[in-house]
Amino acid sequence: MNIITISREFGSGGREVGKRLADALGYTYYDREIEEGVAERMKMDTDYVARSIEQGVPMNVPLHFGRTLAGSYLLKQQVDILVEKQRILKELASSTNCVIVGRAADVILADYRPFKIFVYADLAHRLKRCQAYAEIEENLSPRELEREIKKIDARRAQYRRMYLDADWGVRTQYHLCVNTSGIAVKHIIPMLAGYADSWFQHCKAE
Amino acid sequence: MNIITISREFGSGGREVGKRLADALGYTYYDREIEEGVAERMKMDTDYVARSIEQGVPMNVPLHFGRTLAGSYLLKQQVDILVEKQRILKELASSTNCVIVGRAADVILADYRPFKIFVYADLAHRLKRCQAYAEIEENLSPRELEREIKKIDARRAQYRRMYLDADWGVRTQYHLCVNTSGIAVKHIIPMLAGYADSWFQHCKAE
Repeated sequence: MNIITISREFGSGGREVGKRLADALGYTYYDREIEEGVAERMKMDTDYVARSIEQGVPMNVPLHFGRTLAGSYLLKQQVDILVEKQRILKELASSTNCVIVGRAADVILADYRPFKIFVYADLAHRLKRCQAYAEIEENLSPRELEREIKKIDARRAQYRRMYLDADWGVRTQYHLCVNTSGIAVKHIIPMLAGYADSWFQHCKAE
Repeated sequence: MNIITISREFGSGGREVGKRLADALGYTYYDREIEEGVAERMKMDTDYVARSIEQGVPMNVPLHFGRTLAGSYLLKQQVDILVEKQRILKELASSTNCVIVGRAADVILADYRPFKIFVYADLAHRLKRCQAYAEIEENLSPRELEREIKKIDARRAQYRRMYLDADWGVRTQYHLCVNTSGIAVKHIIPMLAGYADSWFQHCKAE
């Protein structure tokens, strides 16, 4: 199977790249399906699962809390969710050509030799994009929005460090890093599709 | 005019990307022509000019040397070479669609709105490439070769800092960062050409 993973700075249009790229290549696009799958199997609420995955296992949970029954239960539950998430990612990756945005899929699916894209943009363009698409809640001042963007990126970096002893967004971990500042995503899709295609054809087996 | 600049890690195949990309797009490829132009105008030897440009103005020249007549003359000459180089780069950029590899052209030609590519690869592939193409002198052990590669990259980073208060290879300074590890350059050229073309069409005027 051909797997494309997309890591991205918040507000850079990574999700749009993922959707359009999947469309262009006729691949399946996986996003919310991953949390939905976990929620279904574990008989939990999807939003709860998504929040738990996004926040990761809290490394700084106070010891006295971790020692309580409730604390241990919560920690174990979070680990179970992550384990289930990895299982689902691997099942999806084994069953169909697909594009997966975020979720440290590039690391978790390393054995499947994914084509790894990192999408980024300068802050001004990310702010503009967030405002245009109301990706975070509306009515935030530009300053508040900037703070929010940085917070989300920091969380993603932290989440990634859980899986890999390396920083997030370091170019050597990706095959292609794409700056979307000032260009509409739709204009770069044909080239990204061609690039991925060529990579799968000539390079994946290496 | 459409300008494409290519910055690259040593041994990553950046020069080959530049040549092939220029061919694919029907652009002029500039490389040694820049030093030749400077040498001709300043009535100097091309190799001397190339070496002087590569090493940059020595920031750490001892003061007592800088104060001597010979020292002042050498410093002034190096600055003159750099000024002439910038002039030639701008003349070339004004006269024809072109691809320029290295030479901090992305910074020097910022006003011309170049499409900026950074080419990189992991060390193992860079070593392999250097050995295959004998880009540095032959008969170096892998260890010596690795040291040589790192030295050249460090010099490029230093040279870049002369022009721009920023580190070399930082993704935000480029439109596209391309990892050539394990893929033959010829296989990625059609996509790079399409990408650059689309960028000039949709984005340059912004």
